[in-house]
Amino acid sequence: MTTERLRHLTTLEGLDRATLTRLLDRAEAIRRDGAPRDLLAGRTVLNLFFEHSTRTRTSFELAAKRLGADVVNFDVALSSTHKGESLLDTLHTLEAMRLDALVVRHREDGTPDLLARHARSAVAVVNAGDGRRAHPTQGLLDALTIRQHRPDLDRLTVTICGDIRHSRVARSDVHALATLGVGEIRLCAPPALQPQPAEFPRCRIFDDFDAALAGADVAIMLRIQKERIADALPDDGAYFLRYGLDARRLALARPGCLVMHPGPINRGIEIADEVADGPQSRILDQVANGVFVRMAVLAELLGR
Amino acid sequence: MTTERLRHLTTLEGLDRATLTRLLDRAEAIRRDGAPRDLLAGRTVLNLFFEHSTRTRTSFELAAKRLGADVVNFDVALSSTHKGESLLDTLHTLEAMRLDALVVRHREDGTPDLLARHARSAVAVVNAGDGRRAHPTQGLLDALTIRQHRPDLDRLTVTICGDIRHSRVARSDVHALATLGVGEIRLCAPPALQPQPAEFPRCRIFDDFDAALAGADVAIMLRIQKERIADALPDDGAYFLRYGLDARRLALARPGCLVMHPGPINRGIEIADEVADGPQSRILDQVANGVFVRMAVLAELLGR
Amino acid sequence: MTTERLRHLTTLEGLDRATLTRLLDRAEAIRRDGAPRDLLAGRTVLNLFFEHSTRTRTSFELAAKRLGADVVNFDVALSSTHKGESLLDTLHTLEAMRLDALVVRHREDGTPDLLARHARSAVAVVNAGDGRRAHPTQGLLDALTIRQHRPDLDRLTVTICGDIRHSRVARSDVHALATLGVGEIRLCAPPALQPQPAEFPRCRIFDDFDAALAGADVAIMLRIQKERIADALPDDGAYFLRYGLDARRLALARPGCLVMHPGPINRGIEIADEVADGPQSRILDQVANGVFVRMAVLAELLGR
Repeated sequence: MTTERLRHLTTLEGLDRATLTRLLDRAEAIRRDGAPRDLLAGRTVLNLFFEHSTRTRTSFELAAKRLGADVVNFDVALSSTHKGESLLDTLHTLEAMRLDALVVRHREDGTPDLLARHARSAVAVVNAGDGRRAHPTQGLLDALTIRQHRPDLDRLTVTICGDIRHSRVARSDVHALATLGVGEIRLCAPPALQPQPAEFPRCRIFDDFDAALAGADVAIMLRIQKERIADALPDDGAYFLRYGLDARRLALARPGCLVMHPGPINRGIEIADEVADGPQSRILDQVANGVFVRMAVLAELLGR
Repeated sequence: MTTERLRHLTTLEGLDRATLTRLLDRAEAIRRDGAPRDLLAGRTVLNLFFEHSTRTRTSFELAAKRLGADVVNFDVALSSTHKGESLLDTLHTLEAMRLDALVVRHREDGTPDLLARHARSAVAVVNAGDGRRAHPTQGLLDALTIRQHRPDLDRLTVTICGDIRHSRVARSDVHALATLGVGEIRLCAPPALQPQPAEFPRCRIFDDFDAALAGADVAIMLRIQKERIADALPDDGAYFLRYGLDARRLALARPGCLVMHPGPINRGIEIADEVADGPQSRILDQVANGVFVRMAVLAELLGR
Repeated sequence: MTTERLRHLTTLEGLDRATLTRLLDRAEAIRRDGAPRDLLAGRTVLNLFFEHSTRTRTSFELAAKRLGADVVNFDVALSSTHKGESLLDTLHTLEAMRLDALVVRHREDGTPDLLARHARSAVAVVNAGDGRRAHPTQGLLDALTIRQHRPDLDRLTVTICGDIRHSRVARSDVHALATLGVGEIRLCAPPALQPQPAEFPRCRIFDDFDAALAGADVAIMLRIQKERIADALPDDGAYFLRYGLDARRLALARPGCLVMHPGPINRGIEIADEVADGPQSRILDQVANGVFVRMAVLAELLGR
């Protein structure tokens, strides 16, 4: 078992099962029992968002505040000056202000790792989503949500459907689920949005969603960027017909198949109302688990 | 007397006199004695503003923080993603993050009620202004301001002047003042900005401001949207001549007539400097009372 | 020695040496020993920024939060309504909400003084930069940074280089350093960006940067606004050749000459990488001292 504490969380790739399990257990304990409101008193968490993401930023902000940390939102998208400043100068400037954690969202792959590598202080870097590469707290919250309902992970078949090629959520989900020993992971996308198979050696890749769903225990639907539908299929309606999850299709999966989505959902594009709001939907559990997972991550990284 | 605690505050319409009085008494007690700084410790208040309103948002933020709540500003106006998300999906997502109160500003009538009706958790919805319909904390703070200076409400004549047709402030003021038993409520607007009389059965409607002011104990001037002046009168100057409050006109009211305005004021359009800054102006008392009223409302809705 | 506590901090001009020394000593003590996390519990600090400045706002926000104050960001740049409201109406409105400190950034000279002069409550006004006039916490943090490394201030030669004419940093630096008894202060700028000599009677003015650096103990490089380079020199490259600080030029200064810059730096325009990142750079110390100085200022202004 890994006893070494994490220093940063930039990706789930390379983390071992013991580490992932420890984080999930901690999140589960926080969900059940709460957490001390002064655990991070006197610590500073700064949200450094180069892309707007009100929802993810709010989840991190709530997580940090509920542990008693001071939270500052440093909104680079609004700051004309900082657009001209180099990323590392921004990093070192913020470090000089004595931060304990830096939660980073950036459109380019690898930015959080770059920051973690160049940090000179004890600051912990938490990736809140970089490019198409990783969204590790999303991977953890998805794993936690699945584990809560289907603890027998090694027997499960999980199907992830949507724009796999560009999806950091898919990548972090696969890293989490593969390491935790999920039996079978299937990726389904239109041909134009499929990933390189070499990137996902543990996964089976589909373009027929019906086939990908057959016998699945979990269906994770990805948010589609509307501007990318044109690459894949003529329009929204055509996309939904082939890759949308509706009740007919869900019936192809195993009974009780969990329905998940990282949100915000596009109703009628990747998911039908009847499914998003149906009894198998775990979408709101994911949101709730998001706060618990982020509390667990901050506690792990900053706890003394 | 009503002893049932409020669950939401979306409008003052339909609240009885005991409830309004309890809220005003609580605000008054907070003004006089302060409030425990940990009353709402561990509770989360989220400001969900679909329209910018720095002033109202700040007043709510201060109110919540002074009671020890965690406050998160969720600025939908900045969030491109959420523009495409349905309102109810945003609601349920935020609820999943475990909020105690949701303070909502929206340009469409009835949005806070819609949210309150569809809430699945114990979250309390507080309307911070919806369309032309209601701005209940403004109604309460106006009633509190009047009561502080003229406790004999049943003998008072209150004149509200401006763009009544589109004003949520006027609607919430009338609901508060009528229920609290104010003797006479007069509404004055240019013909193009007058309301349907059927909507205000308790009020007398004027288009001659001099007549509407004669003998008034309180004059509430509404903020005029400059783009609506064109509907009413040729220009700012013409508006001010007929509906602006200056010293000459104020002399038509009863001596000591209170002058109020929800702010921000347009000097020289709806109110003259000499009156806005004069000894009868209670405009800044309104601002101060705004924080106390919002503390009282949050304490009422969230207090255990 | 001055024992009178400051009421506002709008400029360093006119403050005596004892007052500046008291503020620097307090900042130094906070750096060394920390400060009570509840020193300003229950007090409210509002950041009123008419210009975006994420970095300065963050430094003030951290300073206030680390002393336990409630902090509200009132972002006028986002508020369409308030653009039309007079400055004094905004002031009195905010005062009515019971603020303890108002941290103001404005593009026009003298705005913080105007606010301080018209304040009706006990609110303390702190200037976070007004036009070209003053940036007093920057002056203090620069003085603190110099004093930490060269306590023999009366023997020092300090050279400030860049767009002196438009620089509030230069003005506040000169006020601080002259009052603290720095031996010689040199100002260096291209002819088009030089100040009126009468404004800086204590300083020697140069346009030859090599001459201005000869024998200097401290070099403070100012951030250049790219749009102003055109007034001074044909392009970035020409500016750097004549007024940029590189290793060759730094060798003209006294050995160990401190290199400072208020940030964010424009690499290759006013400063070379080798110098910005070199062993003599104190740029990140400045950032760290910024938080301590702002804590000291808030503690001075708001402490009971």
